[in-house]
Amino acid sequence: MIAAKVIDKIWATRKADSLIGLKFMLVEVIGGIDAGRLMIAADSIGAGMGERVLVCTGSSARKMLDRNDAPIDAIIIGIIDEDCTF
Amino acid sequence: MIAAKVIDKIWATRKADSLIGLKFMLVEVIGGIDAGRLMIAADSIGAGMGERVLVCTGSSARKMLDRNDAPIDAIIIGIIDEDCTF
Amino acid sequence: MIAAKVIDKIWATRKADSLIGLKFMLVEVIGGIDAGRLMIAADSIGAGMGERVLVCTGSSARKMLDRNDAPIDAIIIGIIDEDCTF
Amino acid sequence: MIAAKVIDKIWATRKADSLIGLKFMLVEVIGGIDAGRLMIAADSIGAGMGERVLVCTGSSARKMLDRNDAPIDAIIIGIIDEDCTF
Amino acid sequence: MIAAKVIDKIWATRKADSLIGLKFMLVEVIGGIDAGRLMIAADSIGAGMGERVLVCTGSSARKMLDRNDAPIDAIIIGIIDEDCTF
Repeated sequence: MIAAKVIDKIWATRKADSLIGLKFMLVEVIGGIDAGRLMIAADSIGAGMGERVLVCTGSSARKMLDRNDAPIDAIIIGIIDEDCTF
Repeated sequence: MIAAKVIDKIWATRKADSLIGLKFMLVEVIGGIDAGRLMIAADSIGAGMGERVLVCTGSSARKMLDRNDAPIDAIIIGIIDEDCTF
Repeated sequence: MIAAKVIDKIWATRKADSLIGLKFMLVEVIGGIDAGRLMIAADSIGAGMGERVLVCTGSSARKMLDRNDAPIDAIIIGIIDEDCTF
Repeated sequence: MIAAKVIDKIWATRKADSLIGLKFMLVEVIGGIDAGRLMIAADSIGAGMGERVLVCTGSSARKMLDRNDAPIDAIIIGIIDEDCTF
Repeated sequence: MIAAKVIDKIWATRKADSLIGLKFMLVEVIGGIDAGRLMIAADSIGAGMGERVLVCTGSSARKMLDRNDAPIDAIIIGIIDEDCTF
């Protein structure tokens, strides 16, 4: 997984039917040599703007959705505690 | 997923049989440290030249096709709204 | 797999239900051109702070967990012996 | 997928039994920030030296082979048309 | 797949049970912009120190093992012939 910060929402009216109802967030990787990488992750946990999140990528990202057939390769799986000072 | 811009079409007359009928677009990653990365993505949503799109990569990319056995590792899954100012 | 060093713990109170009970460690890639890359890996082997570990990524990462449906893309699969001088 | 140029053949007499009969080509990524990356891709389409090809990576790469159990993570899935001027 | 050189062995006494009996080699990517990347790959083909090998990554890496449930994301699948001058 990677640690990232939620920096924006992504709106896509035209999209695959299996994605309807999913929220998409723009996240920016925090720390290390990948800092500044942007990714778009689905969110089913209710992450807010500016929060630090755990993002799971790849086929495992689908495991959190009810619909395992959605074309999703990244999802927010947790909110990093505010007092977690890594 | 990554945000990318459609910059060209790719034509391949000789290709795997399971790819016949699919459109392939050259897309360029937008923003962050990966900006300028080129990828070729299948398109089943009708993305137009210059549009900003959501691209799903990896095994999840096959989930949007009827034919789950196509050798596809990237697909356009949505068009980012024009007034989405990320 | 990659060789990495455990440098911190990650706490996430709000997370996917299937992740409850799992420990998450911040690891830093050791050696080569990826040195300094940060990743968050689940740990089911009891790795300690500062230890050098083997991290498996991708869908294979789920193979070590009882619950194959957890949204996990990286896991600590072994502790590199202290006297292993690579 | 990525666009790449076939630059050499790779010979490996000692290899996994499930790979016997497969051709392996050294390809170099074309264009963008990944230009110059080298990959080895299986070829079941008859790509020639110097041709520009479409390469599919990851688990999807196995979808083009009869033998789905071969340890293959990259395969040439098409030849880019010569008059395709991207 | 990537071409890499075997540069060391990795010893890990404490590891996942499903990994017992597997050999782990430290390999360094050869050529291109990824030259110098280090990876740890399982070896079931008997690669020797200094040999150039083909490494398969991702979920496909498990396809060469009898035990498909091992948490393995990279494996040596062949030895590049010594007289192969790429």
